[in-house]
Amino acid sequence: MKLLRVGTAGAERPALLDAGGTLRDLSGTVTDIDGALLADDAALDRVRAAADAGALPVLDPAGLRIGPPLARIGKVVCIGLNYHDHAAETGAEPPAEPVVFFKAADTVVGPNDTVLVPRGSVKTDWEVELAVVIGRTARYLESHEEALAHVAGYAVAHDVSEREFQIERGGTWDKGKNCETFNPLGPWLVTADEVPDPQALGLRLWVNGELKQDGTTAQQIFPVAEVVRYVSQFMTLYPGDVINTGTPAGVALGQPEPKPFLRAGDVVELEVDGLGRQRQELKGA
Amino acid sequence: MKLLRVGTAGAERPALLDAGGTLRDLSGTVTDIDGALLADDAALDRVRAAADAGALPVLDPAGLRIGPPLARIGKVVCIGLNYHDHAAETGAEPPAEPVVFFKAADTVVGPNDTVLVPRGSVKTDWEVELAVVIGRTARYLESHEEALAHVAGYAVAHDVSEREFQIERGGTWDKGKNCETFNPLGPWLVTADEVPDPQALGLRLWVNGELKQDGTTAQQIFPVAEVVRYVSQFMTLYPGDVINTGTPAGVALGQPEPKPFLRAGDVVELEVDGLGRQRQELKGA
Repeated sequence: MKLLRVGTAGAERPALLDAGGTLRDLSGTVTDIDGALLADDAALDRVRAAADAGALPVLDPAGLRIGPPLARIGKVVCIGLNYHDHAAETGAEPPAEPVVFFKAADTVVGPNDTVLVPRGSVKTDWEVELAVVIGRTARYLESHEEALAHVAGYAVAHDVSEREFQIERGGTWDKGKNCETFNPLGPWLVTADEVPDPQALGLRLWVNGELKQDGTTAQQIFPVAEVVRYVSQFMTLYPGDVINTGTPAGVALGQPEPKPFLRAGDVVELEVDGLGRQRQELKGA
Repeated sequence: MKLLRVGTAGAERPALLDAGGTLRDLSGTVTDIDGALLADDAALDRVRAAADAGALPVLDPAGLRIGPPLARIGKVVCIGLNYHDHAAETGAEPPAEPVVFFKAADTVVGPNDTVLVPRGSVKTDWEVELAVVIGRTARYLESHEEALAHVAGYAVAHDVSEREFQIERGGTWDKGKNCETFNPLGPWLVTADEVPDPQALGLRLWVNGELKQDGTTAQQIFPVAEVVRYVSQFMTLYPGDVINTGTPAGVALGQPEPKPFLRAGDVVELEVDGLGRQRQELKGA
């Protein structure tokens, strides 16, 4: 299923994009799309049955904002340098084990919302990523099979990054990863049953219409199953947590000087196979 | 005011410790102690008036668990190496600007709850800290005065840390800061009006009755007002966000070999002047 949330920011209603591409209202079936729903098999079955029966009211998508496909996100765990080609372009050795950093859940916005270039920023950069949404509480998982059983679904994430804040201002990467609006998510949360192989997804990103990233999750150093298993050794993952699994080559940081960092007025578009497409206009904060 | 939350985990009720040291029930006055309350001057005035009138029902503290003093925490921003004496003991240069890392809000537990030593951990360490609770949305603050006006109050925080995960496993510090139960908070949220000088607070921590940390916030490299101002340049702070402002000298990492890291069965006690005292027993995860 393709689950989403539509409406003004903070007042989104749950919705579903059905197999025929029609937008359907889920607000009579579930209260919202969040960790509690994803952990509730009976509720998900109810949604699926209503969708299959064609019984859900149709919504007119015209003029309707799409919000993030998940409410009440707990934490956003991010994996750094997780693609062979991206590690190479940044001059980093491929990491021996996953690099973990954080984005705060309050950085998450809708897939087509404005992204703010922070005040004083001269190195705002793009990163198309596959986001994993957790559906069951995960502690000390032992196998890749067990790890994938804790995944509720997948979405497109834009891990917007300020490289000076991230790398040149002391401390950890978090300083350049948590500016307001720095994590567009969606348009959809695609349930895991519709993503048979998360390691066979193309990811692409354009800036002002020019293709900048054109990768595949086949290039991930640590595949989704290993990322979930690994992270669960260091922290407990809860339903409604998100893991951004890293970006392929092609970010501004990896280009020759002068590096083409983002500025107000730029338009970024990104997509992951089967998970939909985002479009953001950059504005000054 | 000393605000707190009492009851079983996940079902705490709001309470107040009055000027005479009597525990009072706030559940008839406010729904909970969270960012929404802290941003609502009228609601806080109502609590204060009820407390001053002695009109709040008395609660029997016997056998009553104390939870974290804040519900629905957004994010926990942490400042590293923020005391002159602690930077020195770890062999680090005092940072030129604040070091920022994150704890997930789901690591927060009550002040006397069990702390879990992670599986495979041999370097679990203690850190007594002054936590700052944000009361107003803070973006690009310009002065220290403005920064302090965005602080709702203060609390004791225990920034439990796994040093191998933090330092020796690649990536950022977050990997050793986010294990389950790694952020005891409380017992109280003391409103800012009762903490006239946040740079004049003694902090102490004992392990199995032995004094290990005995510092003062006067030793902070970046005082609370500068921390709040600085962090607001890189991310937006919301009511109900918490900033752990760093730890003074005396952690296990700073001791000679063999360093006395925590093990199951150890008891840690910690306090900050005027903000109360915590006590945790360590157990295996």
